[in-house]
Amino acid sequence: MQTIKYLLHDDDLPRHYLNILPLLPQALAPPLDPQTREPLDPGKMEAIFPMGLIEQEVSVQAEIPIPDEVRDVYALYRATPLIRARRLEKALGTPARIYYKNEGASPAGSHKLNTAIAQAYYNKQAGIGRLVTETGAGQWGTALSMAGTFLGLDVVVYMVRVSFDQKPYRRAVVETFGGDICASPSDKTQIGKRIRAEKPDTSGSLGMAISEAIEDAVGTPGSKYALGSVLNHVILHQTVIGLEAQKQMELAGDYPDVVIGCHGGGSNFAGIVLPFLRDKLNGRDVRFVAAEPRSCPTLTEGEFRYDFGDTGGMTPLLKMYTLGCDFVPPSIHAGGLRYHGAAPIVSHLLHHGLIEATALGQKEVFDAALTFARAEGVIPAPESAHAIRAAIVEAERAKLEGRERVILFNLSGHGHFDMAAYSRYLEGGMED
Amino acid sequence: MQTIKYLLHDDDLPRHYLNILPLLPQALAPPLDPQTREPLDPGKMEAIFPMGLIEQEVSVQAEIPIPDEVRDVYALYRATPLIRARRLEKALGTPARIYYKNEGASPAGSHKLNTAIAQAYYNKQAGIGRLVTETGAGQWGTALSMAGTFLGLDVVVYMVRVSFDQKPYRRAVVETFGGDICASPSDKTQIGKRIRAEKPDTSGSLGMAISEAIEDAVGTPGSKYALGSVLNHVILHQTVIGLEAQKQMELAGDYPDVVIGCHGGGSNFAGIVLPFLRDKLNGRDVRFVAAEPRSCPTLTEGEFRYDFGDTGGMTPLLKMYTLGCDFVPPSIHAGGLRYHGAAPIVSHLLHHGLIEATALGQKEVFDAALTFARAEGVIPAPESAHAIRAAIVEAERAKLEGRERVILFNLSGHGHFDMAAYSRYLEGGMED
Repeated sequence: MQTIKYLLHDDDLPRHYLNILPLLPQALAPPLDPQTREPLDPGKMEAIFPMGLIEQEVSVQAEIPIPDEVRDVYALYRATPLIRARRLEKALGTPARIYYKNEGASPAGSHKLNTAIAQAYYNKQAGIGRLVTETGAGQWGTALSMAGTFLGLDVVVYMVRVSFDQKPYRRAVVETFGGDICASPSDKTQIGKRIRAEKPDTSGSLGMAISEAIEDAVGTPGSKYALGSVLNHVILHQTVIGLEAQKQMELAGDYPDVVIGCHGGGSNFAGIVLPFLRDKLNGRDVRFVAAEPRSCPTLTEGEFRYDFGDTGGMTPLLKMYTLGCDFVPPSIHAGGLRYHGAAPIVSHLLHHGLIEATALGQKEVFDAALTFARAEGVIPAPESAHAIRAAIVEAERAKLEGRERVILFNLSGHGHFDMAAYSRYLEGGMED
Repeated sequence: MQTIKYLLHDDDLPRHYLNILPLLPQALAPPLDPQTREPLDPGKMEAIFPMGLIEQEVSVQAEIPIPDEVRDVYALYRATPLIRARRLEKALGTPARIYYKNEGASPAGSHKLNTAIAQAYYNKQAGIGRLVTETGAGQWGTALSMAGTFLGLDVVVYMVRVSFDQKPYRRAVVETFGGDICASPSDKTQIGKRIRAEKPDTSGSLGMAISEAIEDAVGTPGSKYALGSVLNHVILHQTVIGLEAQKQMELAGDYPDVVIGCHGGGSNFAGIVLPFLRDKLNGRDVRFVAAEPRSCPTLTEGEFRYDFGDTGGMTPLLKMYTLGCDFVPPSIHAGGLRYHGAAPIVSHLLHHGLIEATALGQKEVFDAALTFARAEGVIPAPESAHAIRAAIVEAERAKLEGRERVILFNLSGHGHFDMAAYSRYLEGGMED
């Protein structure tokens, strides 16, 4: 029997997160205070985040211990499997060896649980009893609700309206895990009411939902805000993906020529990439590709400049690739990738030529999703299917060039709550 | 960190299925030819099954090798995890140690893939290009579609109408894996047309869908029928669950006092139970509990007698607990448990006092599902939640008695495509 799964036992789970900040050749541009345009005093973030997370946001320590209580919850589902996609290789007739890390094996269905548990933990440590957040496709809202249940915090979720409507069962999932959820923009916040008055038919956006969640968190005693991507501490928590993948690639006796992730805010991409990027900074030859939707081409067509993380201008200014904080992306099915900005860490890496980005059409992405599902038996989230498509492009290039290539991609989540999009695709009604 | 997951590596996957037939103290009553009422000539089953499966149906060999090609596909997802449900134990405040085998980790979402792959394999060996089947909740139709894709066979699925309507996305799942699916009773078969003429508003039943699938298979050249439960060869394939669980319980350093599975046709229940039953026949003290819905109480209120496996009277007569082959169960949400009969093997064990059965109400089952989801982070299929409820009853009894008890149950599948039922429960509209 050919080995295709590379498992790790609980004792081999990472004990530290990897903080890439102190290892970067050039320093990351700091967030700015929107009033003064001066580097933000980290203490000012305490209105929305607990100090444990703020410290991680600006830490210069390369390895940050994972608390035992967090590791205990990780053990429910980590290490996620690393799979050699032999059936996909065969279907493509490629000489490439394709591996994927299956974060869809998380009980929340995606990688988002990795940071949700850590954020719930540090908020609980700070005495917080209620977390408020936004969600695009619903993966993040699901993950934070689950983490809240595990650690004993209430969770409130503002879900981008178009996704809320496209995915009727996400609400039931979040509620099954005990979270409260509503469509955004809503009537529960001032900013939500203002947006609805100005644009009554808006489909919503992550930027709007972030503004609502922050307003709610700041205005409700005992509450903090939780963000599912973009910020340094979120990406820090996601490095468990790449750290595990490194050990698992060792078990497989292989090393990737290229590491691929889909890109919305940047957390799953950076999560799998950063541990391998550390190798690259130490001289290893390895490429990194961020796959984003052509309809929201932040990395490939955005400007690299300071901008707000939300629509309402409530966040600090972040130096990042951006389409402008007022940009409302089309209602594509990969709702988790509909974000005007990009993580400052990912933006910095792209700006300095350490990673590449590619923009993909919705149709080719769903073609790739079907090819993958039929070969490997896993229905990917539409977001994750961007990574699959980019991996297939690499594999086809290897075939054309007639040479081996080792491809590793992150399957950030499963698509079990995205079947309305698959129905549409199967009926031939998918827009490109 | 406390260990909670017990994993097996590919090399430790079972190499044989366990055939319980030659180990039973009393012989199983044979299927009868409905015309002659004499024991059925196995050769007569060749109209609907390939010889490889018929041989397994009547084999007297206790260990039957798993073909390499089947093991290669199993390796995509097996061994499934055995989990110590420490968080559930804590939530219940029980001294019991609770373990569950998570068959929901299969890419098809349930244990059904175990037999689907084997059945597709033996049909392919026999030169069959098209498999026809029925599905209740949709788990079996999904699994057979996936197996068909993996092994290169076309798959046609007749889905019980009430489930087809309750679960709009099951269709998309089956189609994503390349299967054809329609609601049953349909207009595609004579029996389907006849039932629709007699009962235009029928919600359908597994018995009706089986009749349609058999008619289609028998009438279409190059086709065979595939059954997802009940028969000996199906149960044979499911013993990989219990065989793995035995090795994993050894890793955990524990042995169950009671093994629990939900019961519809009997395959997931028998799959986890039979390897432990072999131990019981060798003198080990262990109990077995089959959990069925109170609205379809085959084992607890049915008669033990010969009956047809389907509504149309097309199958051989099977000696089993039955509510009568014309019984149409109420439209409960655990559609996979809506079957008038029970596997002859399970019926035989119950009749001879080797196992117990319990009937549970829908409301208490969904209460258990929510308790489990919030404790363990896994949303169970409504079918599997019957096993959870029965496990909780055992755990609460252990608490009352103030003593330890080791409980093992099979989580036969996840509930990701059952969120409409969860929505209803969360809104307070669940019927008992």
